[in-house]
Amino acid sequence: MAVITGVRVHDIRFPTSLEADGSDAMNKDGDYSAAYVILETDGDLRGHGFTFTIGRGNDLCAEAARQRAQPLIGRDVDSLLDDLGGIYRELASDSQLRWLGPEKGVVHLAMAAVMNALWDMAARRAEVPLWRLLVEMTPEQLVDAADLRYLSDALTRAEALDLLRASAPLRQQRIAELADRGGYPCYTTSAGWLGYSDDKLRALLQEAVDDGYRHFKLKVGADLEEDRRRLRVAREIVGWDAELMIDANQVWDVPQAIDWINELAEFRPLWIEEPTSPDDVLGHAAIRKAVSPVGVASGEHGMNRVLFKQMFQAEAIDFCQLDSARLASVNEILSVYLMAHKFGVPVCPHAGGVGLCELVQHLSIFDFVAVSGSLDKRLTEYVDHLHEHFVDPAVVVAGHYVLPSKPGYSAEMLEQSIQRYEFPTGSYWVDSRAEEVLVGSRPLSPAVLEARRS
Amino acid sequence: MAVITGVRVHDIRFPTSLEADGSDAMNKDGDYSAAYVILETDGDLRGHGFTFTIGRGNDLCAEAARQRAQPLIGRDVDSLLDDLGGIYRELASDSQLRWLGPEKGVVHLAMAAVMNALWDMAARRAEVPLWRLLVEMTPEQLVDAADLRYLSDALTRAEALDLLRASAPLRQQRIAELADRGGYPCYTTSAGWLGYSDDKLRALLQEAVDDGYRHFKLKVGADLEEDRRRLRVAREIVGWDAELMIDANQVWDVPQAIDWINELAEFRPLWIEEPTSPDDVLGHAAIRKAVSPVGVASGEHGMNRVLFKQMFQAEAIDFCQLDSARLASVNEILSVYLMAHKFGVPVCPHAGGVGLCELVQHLSIFDFVAVSGSLDKRLTEYVDHLHEHFVDPAVVVAGHYVLPSKPGYSAEMLEQSIQRYEFPTGSYWVDSRAEEVLVGSRPLSPAVLEARRS
Repeated sequence: MAVITGVRVHDIRFPTSLEADGSDAMNKDGDYSAAYVILETDGDLRGHGFTFTIGRGNDLCAEAARQRAQPLIGRDVDSLLDDLGGIYRELASDSQLRWLGPEKGVVHLAMAAVMNALWDMAARRAEVPLWRLLVEMTPEQLVDAADLRYLSDALTRAEALDLLRASAPLRQQRIAELADRGGYPCYTTSAGWLGYSDDKLRALLQEAVDDGYRHFKLKVGADLEEDRRRLRVAREIVGWDAELMIDANQVWDVPQAIDWINELAEFRPLWIEEPTSPDDVLGHAAIRKAVSPVGVASGEHGMNRVLFKQMFQAEAIDFCQLDSARLASVNEILSVYLMAHKFGVPVCPHAGGVGLCELVQHLSIFDFVAVSGSLDKRLTEYVDHLHEHFVDPAVVVAGHYVLPSKPGYSAEMLEQSIQRYEFPTGSYWVDSRAEEVLVGSRPLSPAVLEARRS
Repeated sequence: MAVITGVRVHDIRFPTSLEADGSDAMNKDGDYSAAYVILETDGDLRGHGFTFTIGRGNDLCAEAARQRAQPLIGRDVDSLLDDLGGIYRELASDSQLRWLGPEKGVVHLAMAAVMNALWDMAARRAEVPLWRLLVEMTPEQLVDAADLRYLSDALTRAEALDLLRASAPLRQQRIAELADRGGYPCYTTSAGWLGYSDDKLRALLQEAVDDGYRHFKLKVGADLEEDRRRLRVAREIVGWDAELMIDANQVWDVPQAIDWINELAEFRPLWIEEPTSPDDVLGHAAIRKAVSPVGVASGEHGMNRVLFKQMFQAEAIDFCQLDSARLASVNEILSVYLMAHKFGVPVCPHAGGVGLCELVQHLSIFDFVAVSGSLDKRLTEYVDHLHEHFVDPAVVVAGHYVLPSKPGYSAEMLEQSIQRYEFPTGSYWVDSRAEEVLVGSRPLSPAVLEARRS
């Protein structure tokens, strides 16, 4: 009978701002980071999970995750993993931490990190990849794990069960179908960051075309004329049969969004992503009505299931881009997938950052096999950054995520990456090259500076 | 020419869970806490601000506030205080910290703490209470300070200016009118906490009646029969001419809320507060339609101005209960007041906790003098707890907040209270009586336990 003996939490930061990787109209200098959690047991079993941030404040998430995980210490592993809905609800009911959201921001990101580690551990215990653990759960087990609180006006427990029961006899055949296709289809954002030059944009798009991609995403929103120029370049390279998506990263007010998107409509984007505040359900609905046939996509900053419920109820989005490390892990994500299916909205998860591709591949496979049964308008994001730090990195071939086969949620980082990029004491950060990032950054505390100097 | 020389941040916690003060259907054991910020200058001027939490995680807000305040250090005081909109936007534009919300949760609570301290400092520099600083600002200055981002589909800058210009000639007369009335009217929640016995409820309600109150709030939502019993007791004491408000603290799903509220309608509550998730704009709108004539109130957990914008657009609430330490200080609160006025929704700010009464009195006075000009359906919450820790505590006489007269935002805590209740090293927390709270609590870190033992 194994028990949880401890939690290790690491503040891991990669200096991506040096290369303008990930730059967009809102986020000019992100350092992709993970608040990384390792749950340890007295046996060989471990659980690895994280939430994703872009630099400063990653320490807040790490500390919040450490606090979130305290109630797990000393608990029986099998009891926890046999009832992941139960432990989720127990952790979520900490009313003092709940006050700090509720169910949003740092404390919710920390829930994601901790519960991601428990789901990783559950898949490892079963010796299967997470997607297989999920598709082999019964409808009752899945609904017990799902967080349905505050959703019953949109999705009842009975409806959730019916949805999942309908797919049960079809699951094996769908797994075979996905494997035959070479995996789950994806699109790439690697080319389109705002900080890249036109030459770099051109070269990266051509590379993506050559790699078999048919969907490409570009950042927009800083300057209308520049957006036009970059979209012209993109259409020259990818042609008019491929799909272009554009992403404004929340820079506009609602009326401005409508005007700007309509100015770019000639480039026939499949969707405009994050046109305004991610909290603005009614704003997204208004934009969607006004920019059709350009679709509206949002969800990367969708804070919780209640936000997504309203996005569906208000018919505010054409594409749901849930985030695997912002929603509170599989428990909350299950509910969003089930609602999306009921409301007929395809889910195209947000990925990129560090480790998000590793996580979302499992979710997309689960969606196809156990929920939607469709690939129509469904594409998962893929960004070719930082995979080298993972023990079981996502593998993309010819525009498809290859089905993961190793046990777990693919969340485990290499020990040497942890040691090198732990902030601020890892070997990278005490190295002189980090100076550039730290100058742009603000010192976290006197202890940080001291650690670097000593 | 004074400059900001440093920021002191204190994690202050009061053991209110020992007395069930503040207990409700969601929050059974809150320890009222403040992440408390002191901005120091090389002169005599200081700024005091805080955000409010209920215990665990207050350290996260304190650390986030410390990080939020770093860009202020070394800056010229007059330049900062002459353009509080400018520094607000500069701090809010930290894209790495923004990722952790955006504009919600711990990083937003920390913005509240830091900007509250700057507004306090501005009022002290002007040697007036904050409400007077605000009512003496020109419409242009107020609109420059307000955060109007993402709001232009509901309120344009021009509309905001027009609203404020209309009140300018009336302000002096309204100040005199408020002073004549004995201050700004309030209601009390001191009596109605869920953890109190019927005898205590009865005694406290009678005391409040004797003190001149005509509005009383009770917590509901744990058990329907108990709610009925407590409401019957309340009506016996206060009669049917006084107003009763009920508060469910987010315990219900939407359909359940509708059923439960209609079961309690016979007690004629003025409003039901927080019937469901505070994020659920559409849910509140659905409940409001179904429980009329009971009004719907929400806002204590309203995360930011975009949430309130939608509450107004969707006609989801009858009473707006903004929180002075959850919204990002006066900058964001100004926008909510202006929108509320345009949409005809009275603002009845949330208070209680620790220090919230001290802050909201200034806001309510500003609302009457410079925005709404009305007291119809407007009442500010008052809870008689923890005022003894403040240098300039709120004074309530005969159900009215007396107009504050001392310079500042009334946010300054007594130095001896800081020393006694700083967590975990203050004298209270190293005292043996704290054991009860710490047993219910979870240890924050090995350092905490060590500090207590040493």
